[in-house]
Amino acid sequence: MPALDEASLDLIFRQARSHNRWADVPVTDDDIRAIYDLCKWGPTAVNSQPARIVWVRSPEAKARLEPLLDEGNRIKSATAPVVAIVGYDLDFPDTLHKIFHVKGAHAWFPHMDKREWIAFRNSTLQGAYLMVAARALGFDCGPMSGFDNAGVDRAFFAGTNIRSNFIVAIGRGTDEQLYPRNPRHPFEDANTIL
Amino acid sequence: MPALDEASLDLIFRQARSHNRWADVPVTDDDIRAIYDLCKWGPTAVNSQPARIVWVRSPEAKARLEPLLDEGNRIKSATAPVVAIVGYDLDFPDTLHKIFHVKGAHAWFPHMDKREWIAFRNSTLQGAYLMVAARALGFDCGPMSGFDNAGVDRAFFAGTNIRSNFIVAIGRGTDEQLYPRNPRHPFEDANTIL
Repeated sequence: MPALDEASLDLIFRQARSHNRWADVPVTDDDIRAIYDLCKWGPTAVNSQPARIVWVRSPEAKARLEPLLDEGNRIKSATAPVVAIVGYDLDFPDTLHKIFHVKGAHAWFPHMDKREWIAFRNSTLQGAYLMVAARALGFDCGPMSGFDNAGVDRAFFAGTNIRSNFIVAIGRGTDEQLYPRNPRHPFEDANTIL
Repeated sequence: MPALDEASLDLIFRQARSHNRWADVPVTDDDIRAIYDLCKWGPTAVNSQPARIVWVRSPEAKARLEPLLDEGNRIKSATAPVVAIVGYDLDFPDTLHKIFHVKGAHAWFPHMDKREWIAFRNSTLQGAYLMVAARALGFDCGPMSGFDNAGVDRAFFAGTNIRSNFIVAIGRGTDEQLYPRNPRHPFEDANTIL
C-alpha cells in the first residue's frame, strides 16, 4: 500500500502548528489557485461543494475585516499575507447540475434549515481540506472562529445567501507568539472500537 | 519551502476517490490507532477536540448500524473492514482543562446551542482530518451522511451528550461501483480575491 513518507506526515499533521505571526513573503494569485486546485478534490456530500471563499489580501479588504474580528485575532489577520474567509452558500442546490452526476439532485434539498446544516458541515470539511492543502504546499495556517459572523456576512457576502463559517490566515508562519503545543486526547478518551 | 511530492498530493487529494466496495483486507486495531494518532494533530478551536469516534467493526455492531443507514449506504458499510461513526460531544468543555493551556476555558461555553454549533463545526474538521489521515496511510474512505442520526445516537451514544455527525467506511477500496469522477467548481465559481 502506498503511503506518505514520515516527513510528509510531519508537514501536514504531526509538526504543523497554528501560527499567529508571519514572515514577509507574499501569497500570490498562483499560490491561492494552487491551494484551491488541490483542496477542491476533497469529498463533500453529493459533491455539493458549498464553500465559497473570499481571499482577503489588499489593505482595503483587510481594513474592512479587521474590526469584525475578535481583538485577539486582529494582528494575526492584519499581518498575514492572505486571509481566507470560508463561507457556505445556502443556494448550493442551484449549481448541483454542473457538478453532480444524478440529474434533479437539487430537488433533494427543499428545506432551508436542512440546507444550512448540510452547507455548514460540508463547507467545514472543505475548510479542513483547504488547511491541509495549504500545508501540503508548504504554507502555514492560522484558523479563527472568533469574529462577528453577521458582520462579515454583511461586509463580504451582501446580496447573497452565503454565510461565513470560519477564517484562515495563510502565509509562512514564524515562531513568534506560538502557543505551547497543546496535547491531544489519548486514544481511549475519544475512541471506542466495537 | 518544503512541500509534498506529486505522488503524495495525488494520494491524499487529486487521485483519491470515495469508495463503495472493499477488498477483503482487515483494518486492525493498530491501523485504527495509527489513523487516530495522525488525524488528532489537526487544529480545532481552543484545541477543543469534540469528536468522539466509534469504530464499528464486529458483525454485531455492524448489524446494529445497518438498518439505521439509508438503503444506498448499507452494502458499502456492511462490507467495509471498519466504519467510523464520527460524533461530537456537547460536554467537550468538561475536558478542556486536560488539553488547552488557558485555565478556566470551559467557562467560555455556557450555552448549549453555541456548544452544538462549535462541536458540530470542530468535529467536522476532525472528520475531514480523519479521512485525509486514512488516505495518507494508504487507506480509502467512503464517507456517508445519509442515515438516521437520532437512531445512531440511541444505538451508539446512549446515556451521553454525544451526537452523531457523519460516518466514514474505511478499507482498501476496489473500483467496483465507483461513481464517475464528478467535476469541481472552477476557481472563479467558488473564489474571490480581494
